[in-house]
Amino acid sequence: MKTKDRIIEASIELFNSQGERNVTTNHIASHLNISPGNLYYHFSNKEEIIRHIFTKYADHMAISFEPVKPSQDAVKILTNYFDAVFSALYHFNFLYDNLPVIMARDPELRAQFGVIHNKMMEKIHHLIVSLQVANVINMDTNDIDDLANIIKQQVTFWISYCKTSSENADVTDELIYNGLLKVILLFKPYITSEYKDTINDISTRYRALAAGKTVEE
Amino acid sequence: MKTKDRIIEASIELFNSQGERNVTTNHIASHLNISPGNLYYHFSNKEEIIRHIFTKYADHMAISFEPVKPSQDAVKILTNYFDAVFSALYHFNFLYDNLPVIMARDPELRAQFGVIHNKMMEKIHHLIVSLQVANVINMDTNDIDDLANIIKQQVTFWISYCKTSSENADVTDELIYNGLLKVILLFKPYITSEYKDTINDISTRYRALAAGKTVEE
Repeated sequence: MKTKDRIIEASIELFNSQGERNVTTNHIASHLNISPGNLYYHFSNKEEIIRHIFTKYADHMAISFEPVKPSQDAVKILTNYFDAVFSALYHFNFLYDNLPVIMARDPELRAQFGVIHNKMMEKIHHLIVSLQVANVINMDTNDIDDLANIIKQQVTFWISYCKTSSENADVTDELIYNGLLKVILLFKPYITSEYKDTINDISTRYRALAAGKTVEE
Repeated sequence: MKTKDRIIEASIELFNSQGERNVTTNHIASHLNISPGNLYYHFSNKEEIIRHIFTKYADHMAISFEPVKPSQDAVKILTNYFDAVFSALYHFNFLYDNLPVIMARDPELRAQFGVIHNKMMEKIHHLIVSLQVANVINMDTNDIDDLANIIKQQVTFWISYCKTSSENADVTDELIYNGLLKVILLFKPYITSEYKDTINDISTRYRALAAGKTVEE
């Protein structure tokens, strides 16, 4: 791996495990056993590293949240969405922990995030409509926009919520699965009788994962 | 008003309107036409001002979220809750905009917030159970804890969500009413047929307020 990519990977790892605000470029260089001068040859400051990570984040979001195809079955649509949410929260948890601050200090990222946000809103909206068309859920179409916003907020601020609600809330797999269970509950009241058992199965599976149990694929 | 109280009031006002991170003790002193030395006579730094504001916040939360009395009717229970949420978001919006950061840099506030958080969770839990007992809502009792958490997160991070989702999202009455509508939607699927009209009326009222219209009391 090129030094530049190693710096980015190490930064993501350190930001995620120690919190972005506690990690300096010196920490990153020392973690990689390279000189600060070598790091500064590739990036002029931490902000520039974060911008590169943000580009990776944007790519990740574009790829992992694939558009729903009309042929997909409902369970696949939902579990694909949950997997994509899990992977975004897992790989970029420091961003979710510190979003308002990172946005506030860099207008360029702020604008980039706006674009990602709008695309994600479209995808969640499309997901809800697909579930409605497939008769998996039945809800007032006037409420779809609001539900999409609630889901988006629930996912985006889940990590911040956990970190402010209890001390030492490390971002573990279990913590993320617990967040997915909240999203399942948001869908649950709208599930049609035909799909009640399916949703209960999905819910039971994530409840086991959230409790730290291993689950057969 | 004593200078100490004037400093606190001016700080809340400036933090809310300009963002806590953009306001220094010098800005506060200049806004009040007092010398920085006079301000430092009362508070040794910005952190100490924020701690005083936080105590006011804790008092506000304790008073405005009154416990539900068994004699109260369902509409009163819900609208009291919405009024209390509105007033907390309105008066202390800078805290909600910057919660993870403020908590991260001051362990004392972090611990204080933990106590407030737990009390609020109890109150929301109690609110949901009261609505269930009064037959206003009908939901699986196993889901009550998760719904309480979702509502708490929705309220706590509504302002951060708006500020990260769109540029120049000023905290106006309309923005807060829009947040209350999301909380109403969270209750809506569980409302019993007996109370459908009541909830629709409440929802219509807040929809008008969120659109900037005046509404008769």
